[in-house]
Amino acid sequence: MTEPAARRPKALAFDVFGTVVDWRTSIARESAAFLAQIDRADIDAHDFADQWRRRYLPAMAAVSGGQRGFVKLDILHREMLEAVLRDLGIDAASLDPALLADWTLAWHRLDPWPDAVAGIARLRTALPVVTLSNGNVSLMVDMARRAGFVWDAILGAEYARAYKPQPTAYLATADALAIEPHELCLVAAHHSDLAAARGCGLMTAYIDRPLEYGGARAPDADAAQDWEYSADSLTTLAAELGC
Amino acid sequence: MTEPAARRPKALAFDVFGTVVDWRTSIARESAAFLAQIDRADIDAHDFADQWRRRYLPAMAAVSGGQRGFVKLDILHREMLEAVLRDLGIDAASLDPALLADWTLAWHRLDPWPDAVAGIARLRTALPVVTLSNGNVSLMVDMARRAGFVWDAILGAEYARAYKPQPTAYLATADALAIEPHELCLVAAHHSDLAAARGCGLMTAYIDRPLEYGGARAPDADAAQDWEYSADSLTTLAAELGC
Repeated sequence: MTEPAARRPKALAFDVFGTVVDWRTSIARESAAFLAQIDRADIDAHDFADQWRRRYLPAMAAVSGGQRGFVKLDILHREMLEAVLRDLGIDAASLDPALLADWTLAWHRLDPWPDAVAGIARLRTALPVVTLSNGNVSLMVDMARRAGFVWDAILGAEYARAYKPQPTAYLATADALAIEPHELCLVAAHHSDLAAARGCGLMTAYIDRPLEYGGARAPDADAAQDWEYSADSLTTLAAELGC
Repeated sequence: MTEPAARRPKALAFDVFGTVVDWRTSIARESAAFLAQIDRADIDAHDFADQWRRRYLPAMAAVSGGQRGFVKLDILHREMLEAVLRDLGIDAASLDPALLADWTLAWHRLDPWPDAVAGIARLRTALPVVTLSNGNVSLMVDMARRAGFVWDAILGAEYARAYKPQPTAYLATADALAIEPHELCLVAAHHSDLAAARGCGLMTAYIDRPLEYGGARAPDADAAQDWEYSADSLTTLAAELGC
């Protein structure tokens, strides 16, 4: 813990998938409907959501590793969806293109955790709140308008043209806000994300989301550190920050 | 005029200086205070504002022409301020650095036109509203928080790393929103800006701001065209769009 006077950040940057919205329940809900449309209601929709999300890190690693140029997450989500379907013996080319496009956009329709709308609104009364997500701009805009979030700016991967955990994603967000990295606090439910942010000099706020993986252990549970803030909801974080 | 069915855009992108905020009155108010601090209250603050703004197009032209890489408008505003002071026989190097920095940030503290907050809020109920300004992200965030605007995203020059009227500034804004240029409508008080947007395929909405130059004729008054929309305020535009 640093001194109280040093601890108040000048802005808050939010991880979104898992921290602000419950991607697993939402993608399962959406996918159950699409699976029913293609007569594959036999497939477990939560397993489907997990399979889709499991391809997230490898898909971004190809961009971060320089094997391909920056592409929006919407593009990666589409490729990941086709790969999951292939693993299940379903040829995406045989499906209605409009259905595939809409299924990909399921990530634009994720529901917030119960505390998110009120928590972000309360934090925003005191500090600028921005996204520092790997999601692309239109995904973030659609999600926020649907859920009722107000962000001061949509920053992160597409603005930086680099995916977390690349340092550029964190540093470009601070630069856009014209503040130093140590004046920006990442709010995230993932220790790996927070560790990368800390490596860039950012402050860190951990939000515990025990249901992100349906109650299963988080893949980065071992990466826990003593973060500047730790809370079980965004409204609790607001209270910790004195908002 | 196109067919009514084709005329409703999918999103609205706003020019900000002059269209949403009254830069001249605000910069004159701010500069009067700073001029008094440096014992130069003899200088007319509205003239000072006009001189500062007059250097806007040439400053950006150096970036657009490739003579220098992209820099944020805050940097250009600082250079322009120093040049205006030089013209008045004032050496910026002799002034308090904190005062100069704060004076530069006067552009973050511009007051909205009387209809702007209500107009943007009303338009946002129906459509995504984003900035397509040459102002940088932190300038737009500070201004919006101070004035009470809610934008769905801060796009435009810094996101595109190109200043209007370069086509990239308009086209990158549509791309970020995942819509076609013809589905995006620029809202602006300047015929030159609207003409460039139309050249990129955007729809156009003209907002008449007769007091932008203190009642003087706009420098691009001759560039008027028959724009898709034309209104005397943002609330009137909202009514025209059926919001």
